[in-house]
Order: sequence, then structure tokens, then C-alpha cells
Amino acid sequence: MSTVRVSLGERSYDIDIREGNLSRVGDLVAPLARAGRVAVVTDTHVAALYGDRVTAALDAAGFTSRLFPVPAGEHSKSAAQLAELWDAFVAFDMDRSSTVVALGGGVVGDLAGFAAATYMRGVRYVQVPTTMLACVDSSVGGKTAIDLAAGKNLVGAFHQPSAVVIDPGALRSLPGRELSAGLAEVVKHGMIMDAAFFERLERDVERLRALEGDVTTGVIHRNCELKAGVVAEDEREAGRRAILNYGHSVGHAVEMLAGGALVHGEAVAVGMAVEARVAETLGRIGPEVTQRQNALLGRAGLVTTVGEVATDAVIETMRHDKKARHGKLNLALPSRIGACEVVADVGVEVIARSLEDCRER
Amino acid sequence: MSTVRVSLGERSYDIDIREGNLSRVGDLVAPLARAGRVAVVTDTHVAALYGDRVTAALDAAGFTSRLFPVPAGEHSKSAAQLAELWDAFVAFDMDRSSTVVALGGGVVGDLAGFAAATYMRGVRYVQVPTTMLACVDSSVGGKTAIDLAAGKNLVGAFHQPSAVVIDPGALRSLPGRELSAGLAEVVKHGMIMDAAFFERLERDVERLRALEGDVTTGVIHRNCELKAGVVAEDEREAGRRAILNYGHSVGHAVEMLAGGALVHGEAVAVGMAVEARVAETLGRIGPEVTQRQNALLGRAGLVTTVGEVATDAVIETMRHDKKARHGKLNLALPSRIGACEVVADVGVEVIARSLEDCRER
Repeated sequence: MSTVRVSLGERSYDIDIREGNLSRVGDLVAPLARAGRVAVVTDTHVAALYGDRVTAALDAAGFTSRLFPVPAGEHSKSAAQLAELWDAFVAFDMDRSSTVVALGGGVVGDLAGFAAATYMRGVRYVQVPTTMLACVDSSVGGKTAIDLAAGKNLVGAFHQPSAVVIDPGALRSLPGRELSAGLAEVVKHGMIMDAAFFERLERDVERLRALEGDVTTGVIHRNCELKAGVVAEDEREAGRRAILNYGHSVGHAVEMLAGGALVHGEAVAVGMAVEARVAETLGRIGPEVTQRQNALLGRAGLVTTVGEVATDAVIETMRHDKKARHGKLNLALPSRIGACEVVADVGVEVIARSLEDCRER
Repeated sequence: MSTVRVSLGERSYDIDIREGNLSRVGDLVAPLARAGRVAVVTDTHVAALYGDRVTAALDAAGFTSRLFPVPAGEHSKSAAQLAELWDAFVAFDMDRSSTVVALGGGVVGDLAGFAAATYMRGVRYVQVPTTMLACVDSSVGGKTAIDLAAGKNLVGAFHQPSAVVIDPGALRSLPGRELSAGLAEVVKHGMIMDAAFFERLERDVERLRALEGDVTTGVIHRNCELKAGVVAEDEREAGRRAILNYGHSVGHAVEMLAGGALVHGEAVAVGMAVEARVAETLGRIGPEVTQRQNALLGRAGLVTTVGEVATDAVIETMRHDKKARHGKLNLALPSRIGACEVVADVGVEVIARSLEDCRER
């Protein structure tokens, strides 16, 4: 068992990482909420695998729980799905003292978290991530969102969970592709914040892909620590938290334009490759930094070349990203392995050229 | 000119009350936001009256503004209208540094405020109320919301405005019925918090209905002070702020069931009459308190008898209200003119009987 504290004053919470935690969700939620209704928002895949285990654990702890499965996939992060959840919460007689459990990956966490942030102006929620991506990244920090037709995560709220409950055993049901996708964020955390952790990944990435117990728990723990540190310093992304966007400015655009061909982590890996190339072009790093990053991403099972998306379309999509300000593109760029800075007003021509440089030849 | 400060730490803001302020919106927003896009959300009625004046003032101050009119009426506080606004903000190229101005009454303030709370996880907004209700109540305190089919304000966020800009001159375009509706909240503030203010209203209510300048500005000022005091003490309604719900538990239900026949303030007046009767039944006040309240509401142009709604339906709707907890009904009830307490777990039979007592005979 291991616990990471996210320190945010009265909004502080613990991340509890322990094999078998899915069966302990009830006991872990019990200290936070008096008996009452718990809506377990999940997707159809995860519902089939773990839905009953989680609701049984909640009911055994005295809660009245119900599963709210949404279709698996990014398209569930929609205004229409959100409105359906709101109505379903009312039909389940949920009040301000009720709890939402987000059981699943990043899509479920973002959608359920935003539903919790807004239902009756905010109810408690607990993240129970079941993908690598959600365990190491999206379940920590309180960012919730849905997508609009024009872009990902354009609507949402900062709403911290009351707890994060991680069962590394849940990752064994993940398809290899999803596991690899989650590792993009793991490599990112090493790249932008912790050279020693990056080196540990260079040593252990194959054991991590095999989900060896100690390695997996250790990596998740360190990831959560790194992310919690940034979030504690800058909860609402007014400053330092923006470094977590490394790989995401280009990545979000590539993901949208790929229209479902790439999952989030895969697009982030491409984004990291392109943004590292931007950093090279601006003279901020040498080519060996990009090479080490891309080699590690490759060993994690990720592609680091740009696919069939048009450069112009990527640039245009980036202009509409919420990270843009007055039409200017700010990028989080590495200054070496383990360090990163936000660079203001990067020229679009530099980004366009770097995209071209990262196409398969 | 008069200014009321709402003290909420880093979320503090000023309420600026001054004849002619609609033409000064640009100058009042300028210190809060650097030049950029301003979405003026309003309704079709208000757009025709004041839309051009406000956008001209914003553009003269260096902003790029655009009107976003929604149909007038409570039905615009819907998930569908909210989603349309989000898409329209994207189409207007708004980013995190953009500003939303809510120009109108309570519906516009709630909808625009919630859109601002959630667009890109929260952008700045300024309330420019143009109804009595919005000036004295809904524009202050950061409660934003939309309605669901099952009830009013079931979804929303606490999101404080960066400023409230009040032009008492705008009230002159109000239909008498809307003006009276707003006075329900004015009388409520006197009832629950300030006996001297209640007495001032007993003296001046006719001059207030005639919108005499000094009386109007003075009453708005004192209302904002009273509300700001409660909000500063309990921003997220964990305790004391719940006294502001006086009249609203019954009122919301009556408003919903009347299906558009009553506007919000009219329903609140009925709710205050019923809830005062509940307080009488529980021995918390004598009948003379209810009589004074109802007499003042009557002079303000409001009806204090229950219309055609069925008692059972009111009770059932109240159970789904977000102010209910675990199905128990907590009511804010007066203990004398100028004082109020939240009373837990009021029996539904007492509420039902009080409703019957308040029917016209």
C-alpha cells in the first residue's frame, strides 16, 4: 500500500494505491460521506469488468449505489451525455450530500467529474481510475471537462476529488494499446520534472509494460507525487501547472484531426515529439534530448511520427485551443531531460516546420 | 454614486450603483481585463433596449464586443441554450482571457454566469443587472445555474463575478409586474436580516415603486450590503447563507408547478407567506409578523395567497429540491421581523397544512 497526499488546504485529499482497492472502495469512501446515494459513473466496458465489484463494496459499506454506464470512447465527453447524467442523477434522487464515483479512464473521469462539479452546484466525487493514463495523470488534480465540436476540453471546471482510489490490478484488463497510451504521460512527467525518474523508466519500461507489481506501483506512486506537487503549487493553472501541457498543444490538435484513429496518449506522444523538435529549433535543447525521449516512447509502444493530418489544419486547430491567448501560442518546452519551461508566443511557422520534420520519411 | 464591496479574499469585487452606468460599462470593465473579446449575453428584450449602448461603451474602451441574445424567459436557462452559448463563444474566438457580460435579469445572469464558470474551465464575468430582482439579489453572490426538466437551478456553479455594474435608470423600462416581483426579495432581506430596513420599506414602498431616484439607489445599496454580508460569511452556502432561501423552498415548487403563470419573485412572495405561516404553526412567530410581511408584499404589488397548484404536487416537488437532504426538508423561517433561522427536518404535514391555510377563501 502507498499513499500520496495532494495538499490543497481544505481541498486536500489522498491518493490510495493498493492491489485489491476496487473491493475496498466502500471502506475508503465511508470516512468521507455519511451513508447516502453514490452514482458510479463508468463506461460500458468497465461496467462489465468491475461494475458489480465496486457497487457491492459500496453497498456493503452502507451506501445506496447505482451504476451509470456511458458508451466507451471520447464521444461520451459531450454536452448531450452530460445533460443525460444530470437528469439521471435527479431520477436517482441524488441530493447535495450524495457522492459520484468515476470508475474508468480519462473520459469517464473528466465527464463524471464535471457532472459532479455542476450537479446542484457541486457534489463530492471520488476518482477510481482503471487505465494507466487515468492512474498517472487525469485522475489527479481536479481538471474536469467535456468536448465541443470545435475542440477537446473546451468546457469544464476545476473540481478536486475527495479521494483517488487506485487498484493497479485493474490495469491487467487493459489492452496493450491503452497501456502504452498511458505511458506517454509517464514519460512526459519524467521529461518535464524528474531526470532520475526518466532514467528509471529507461531501465524498467519493459517490466512496466508487463505490469510487474512493484515496478507498477512504484511508477504510479512517483507519477502521482510529481503531479500532486505541481497541482499543489498552482491549482488553477495560472502558472507552473502549464508545464503539464507539454506535448498537449500539438497533441490535442492531432488527436482531434485524427478523428478517433489515435487515442489521447498516442496523440500526446506525437505531440511530445513535435514539441521537442520545436525546442530544438529554438535552440533550447540538443537533438540527443529528443532522441532519448523518442526512443523511450518507442519502447513504451508509442509512435513518434506525425501521421496523415495536414499541417495547416493542426495549426488552425491549435489557435482555437484554450491554451491559446489572444491568438498567441504558448508552449511548454523542455530545456533538458527533467526540466521544462513555458515559452510565450511561439511562431506558428516554427511549429509548422517541426511538424513536417516529424513526418515519416 | 455608491459602491458596495463584496469581501471574498482574492475573489472580492465591487458593486457600483450609479445612474448612467450602462454607458460606463467599458470604463468599469477596463481595469479588470486587458483589451480582448467581451461576449455580452442578454435577452431579446434587453438587447433591443440597451444592447447597443453597452457594446458601444465596451468598444470605446478598447474591447471587441458582440451581443449574444437569448430568448427572454426562464426557458432559456436550459442545457440546450447553454450548449449553444458555449459553441457561440468558440465561434467568437473567445479564450481564457476573454470576458462575459451578463446584461439583463436573473435568467440572463444565471445562464451567462454558468456559461462563464464553465467555458474553458472558467472565464471572468461582469453582472450588469437590468431588473429589480437582479439588482437586489441574483447578480450578487456568484450563484449561477440552469434548470432541468425536474426542477429549477438543479445544475450550476459558484462563480463570483469580477464586478457588478448597476444603473438604476435601467429599471424605468421594467413592466410594473417585473418591478413588483423584484421587491419580493427586497422585503425578504428586511424580514430575515434588518428590522430597520423593513420599517424603511413600510414607509417608502410607494416611492420605491415609483422609482424615485434617492429611494431607489438607497434601497438597492442597502440590499446589496445585506446580501454581500451573508455571502462574505458563507460563500458556498454551507451554513448562514441558507437563510436567503426564505420563501424559496415553497416558492421554487410553486413557480415550477405554475408553469410560467408566475415569475420568480411572485412565487417567492407566495412562498414567504406560506413559510411564515409554517413558522406560526411551529410557534416561532405570532400572526402579527406574517400580517406585517404580507401587508408590505401587498403594497409592493404582490399576491400572498396560493393559487391553483395542488398541495401534494408542491410537497413532491420540494422533496426533489436541491435544498432537501436525504429527503428531509429544511426551511429558513423567521423568528421575528429582521431575524431568521434554518430549521431542520420540518414535517411535510405542517407545510401542507400551511399551504392550505394560505389559499384564498
